[in-house]
Amino acid sequence: MHFFTTDTPFALELGDSLPQLTIAYHTYGTLSPERDNVIWVCHALTANSDVADWWPHTVEKGAFLDPERYFVVCANILGSHYGTTGPLTPDPVSGEALYGDFPAITIGDMARAHSLLADALGIKRIHKLVGSSVGGFQAMEWAAQEPARFENLVLIATAAKASPWAIAVDETQRMAIKSDATYGEKRPDAAAAGLAAARAIGMLTYRGPEGYNRTQQDPPEGAAQHRAVTYQQHQGNKLCRRYNAYSYVTILDAFDTHDIGRGRGGLQAVFNTLTMPVTVVGITTDIIFTPAEMRLLASRLPNAKYYEIDSPMGHDGFLVEHVQLNRILTQQ
Amino acid sequence: MHFFTTDTPFALELGDSLPQLTIAYHTYGTLSPERDNVIWVCHALTANSDVADWWPHTVEKGAFLDPERYFVVCANILGSHYGTTGPLTPDPVSGEALYGDFPAITIGDMARAHSLLADALGIKRIHKLVGSSVGGFQAMEWAAQEPARFENLVLIATAAKASPWAIAVDETQRMAIKSDATYGEKRPDAAAAGLAAARAIGMLTYRGPEGYNRTQQDPPEGAAQHRAVTYQQHQGNKLCRRYNAYSYVTILDAFDTHDIGRGRGGLQAVFNTLTMPVTVVGITTDIIFTPAEMRLLASRLPNAKYYEIDSPMGHDGFLVEHVQLNRILTQQ
Repeated sequence: MHFFTTDTPFALELGDSLPQLTIAYHTYGTLSPERDNVIWVCHALTANSDVADWWPHTVEKGAFLDPERYFVVCANILGSHYGTTGPLTPDPVSGEALYGDFPAITIGDMARAHSLLADALGIKRIHKLVGSSVGGFQAMEWAAQEPARFENLVLIATAAKASPWAIAVDETQRMAIKSDATYGEKRPDAAAAGLAAARAIGMLTYRGPEGYNRTQQDPPEGAAQHRAVTYQQHQGNKLCRRYNAYSYVTILDAFDTHDIGRGRGGLQAVFNTLTMPVTVVGITTDIIFTPAEMRLLASRLPNAKYYEIDSPMGHDGFLVEHVQLNRILTQQ
Repeated sequence: MHFFTTDTPFALELGDSLPQLTIAYHTYGTLSPERDNVIWVCHALTANSDVADWWPHTVEKGAFLDPERYFVVCANILGSHYGTTGPLTPDPVSGEALYGDFPAITIGDMARAHSLLADALGIKRIHKLVGSSVGGFQAMEWAAQEPARFENLVLIATAAKASPWAIAVDETQRMAIKSDATYGEKRPDAAAAGLAAARAIGMLTYRGPEGYNRTQQDPPEGAAQHRAVTYQQHQGNKLCRRYNAYSYVTILDAFDTHDIGRGRGGLQAVFNTLTMPVTVVGITTDIIFTPAEMRLLASRLPNAKYYEIDSPMGHDGFLVEHVQLNRILTQQ
């Protein structure tokens, strides 16, 4: 993991400003002398910059993030838990983390941080910008900010604007976190029970009916505790061991602000500026970003092709179905 | 609202026993001299015995619960908040409510309570037993207990056995409630914040992506607060004003025990005993009890016909689409 730090204050879209910005990032492979082999990956909600860790069989020879061909970059997003400035980062003046007082950020802020890092790395043009889920939010927003920087876009299970449904899911997670009265306490493990419940809500939407009914059936003889119960608790507790409630809420809040058309004359006006080839990928059983919405997105972009991953695993199909994903994305 | 009370202890399937049982119920219309015009309605999770209140345009002349033709009965379920014995009922000995110490119950217990009431009302044969959602759980379980009592079954958006997906949704709601540290306190409004979050989770699954995206779009000029955010909070708080967390958890726990095949040789063995005409109704966008599962249920019953409500409103379609529902059910 590498770090880029700047002491120039980083102005935030909603009015606040960070006195200092650190960005944690990973790279894989070698930047070509022509600097024309960059694939930039934007990660989802609770992931980190280590793509090879969270996206199995993608950073591999022959895969779409082949490090022998490409220089792959992934930066931990603003507000996150994994090295980039966020609620648990000590303030440079007070030495104390801001926790719940960390300022509100937007997907636009995340994209501007990516842009800063790209400039610092001497990367002007990006061959391919890839984002899935909230990573796709960043990809679309960054492309809207600087369309000339990108030769190709890959948008997987994502949206140009947060839907009422997705916002309702986010608010429900916030309600669960805030029903834990320890939310607000200035410690990294505040609101752990609430965060576990929020993660369990997230898992419902990531896997969906078919995902659970495929993977969490009880044994025929029955079980003292339903597998689905144990699974929800396990997923919730697992997140608590690796994440914090303040980063989670900060990123959910940013999620809800996502609308690449805001302040730019609406969605279609922005779509019209995205004239590069775009690969749009939906997942048959995704209930967060439904195939119908993904197909509609592709149809509104001037130069997009739509592909669909056939999977019972819901939104998580983008993590699980690497064989189909590699087949689609190595054709590009 | 009427009450039936018995001082005979009511033995519960999981081993405990209630010293006394009160059942709150509503009736509409008049029992025919032949006692052959009874429609018994089983209600869902947080509803009450007043069908005319929670199921619009069903208890009306010409509708499928026409009180001029039928004697319609609905009993508040065991463990609920609306008059039947539950966690907030004062114990006959101590005078104190049991709150979180209320014993664990099953759908089978709910059905046995219905059976007691039917006997007390002098109703031997039931012309039609109707249940939607958890009401359908009770209907199937009661029919499995006493198949000869029922001439017809109507099963709307329900299942013969709780699926891993539905159990995962329940557990997530319990996690949200229990992340509120006031859960366990012996007062009716304990865990209100957790209960609000749980209800918001429930709403997600009742409405689904299409329901939210149809009804909760922000105005074109944007909004200070997303409508979907306000909606979730409003729904959560609304439930807290009319319900309690202990009844909610008691019924979720009972939900998870639902399996009409348990102790009876499996689902198909029970299905084979349900030889009466059965009307199975699914909803196109229901993500709790999907149309595919409802179709499968109908195909496994010896004498069932399948109908589908075409609705963008998800599981809540059973409450909203009374025109389609009346069209389907008045044909029977």
